[in-house]
Amino acid sequence: MINTARLISFSTQGRDEMHDITAEARTFVADSGLVQGQLTVFVPGATASVTTIEMEPGLMQDLPRLLEALIPMKKAWQHNQTWGDDNGGSHLRASLIGPSLTIPVMDGGLTLGTWQQIIVIDHDVRPRKRQVVLQALGSSGRH
Amino acid sequence: MINTARLISFSTQGRDEMHDITAEARTFVADSGLVQGQLTVFVPGATASVTTIEMEPGLMQDLPRLLEALIPMKKAWQHNQTWGDDNGGSHLRASLIGPSLTIPVMDGGLTLGTWQQIIVIDHDVRPRKRQVVLQALGSSGRH
Amino acid sequence: MINTARLISFSTQGRDEMHDITAEARTFVADSGLVQGQLTVFVPGATASVTTIEMEPGLMQDLPRLLEALIPMKKAWQHNQTWGDDNGGSHLRASLIGPSLTIPVMDGGLTLGTWQQIIVIDHDVRPRKRQVVLQALGSSGRH
Repeated sequence: MINTARLISFSTQGRDEMHDITAEARTFVADSGLVQGQLTVFVPGATASVTTIEMEPGLMQDLPRLLEALIPMKKAWQHNQTWGDDNGGSHLRASLIGPSLTIPVMDGGLTLGTWQQIIVIDHDVRPRKRQVVLQALGSSGRH
Repeated sequence: MINTARLISFSTQGRDEMHDITAEARTFVADSGLVQGQLTVFVPGATASVTTIEMEPGLMQDLPRLLEALIPMKKAWQHNQTWGDDNGGSHLRASLIGPSLTIPVMDGGLTLGTWQQIIVIDHDVRPRKRQVVLQALGSSGRH
Repeated sequence: MINTARLISFSTQGRDEMHDITAEARTFVADSGLVQGQLTVFVPGATASVTTIEMEPGLMQDLPRLLEALIPMKKAWQHNQTWGDDNGGSHLRASLIGPSLTIPVMDGGLTLGTWQQIIVIDHDVRPRKRQVVLQALGSSGRH
């Protein structure tokens, strides 16, 4: 059985900055020896999320714009009023998109579409360092 | 290989009531003997969802308020008109957030952030008892 | 250990067409011999998503209507303006709902609720053939 994890990290400016971690995910899967099974991607923290997208400049503007339309940062969120904070909207964006993703691995490769990248979105309002957990589970041969 | 599941249950009033199940998830992981691998959380039922959040009183008001803004319960949803029901909005909220979550386990611990709790949200409009499935998959030693 | 995958495919007209793949998922789990563990469902591609819903005619109208209210297709998305495309809204819908789902399997059965079906939603704007990956991981006996 292949069962191993890796932490990757990067710096971010927040404000819905999107990080494409597909290359690091592929490297991890190759290093793990996983041939058949799955990769789980998880972001620790309550103001970031994980999903997939076609990572191109247009959508890198559109997704933050959509999130601001659906969940405005300036709204009088109770979180902000209670804690003197300004990232209530960051929390809500993260909860809606969610922190985890599981992608099957077949013949040693992630089953992503051609134009589908794995992204971590930092919804918080200040620069910080983010860690992401990659976890491989399965086997080194085909069953 | 560790491969085991547990059902937990609780009573809820619905209407986006949020249940923090982090403590039960930690207990389950410890009881399972899982050291390296993953925990999957899944809620059976079409009017509840699973995600993570910082479980504090402000966000416990903000998330239901956001959901009502995005998916109003009183809107003339076809589901309600067809079935004489009033929980069409509950169904839509549940489908948008989703019913499952997978969290890697390293060194016997969930890789959650410090302020990140696992929650089940009951979007339905009446009191009921909810069951949630916890499932541990991996191994009892580090690989 | 049970660790196997299957690709299923279907034709779709897009425009938020919802496909119930629950029966195929159950057949796959039975064929795989999985008794305890989990099923992961993943859709390759950046304009489709996976979630659960009560698959009835009312909600089959309500969910597309909700998505159009939240993420209008006609809005001037930068993706469309850059690529001369008209499916920017399709991409955003897919990223928000997400491409993966993990469902625990107990005693050989998916732990879905009675009225809860697994659906793949094709958010794209033209007919196409879709593939979905089903992946079973666990064991053939109870642990």
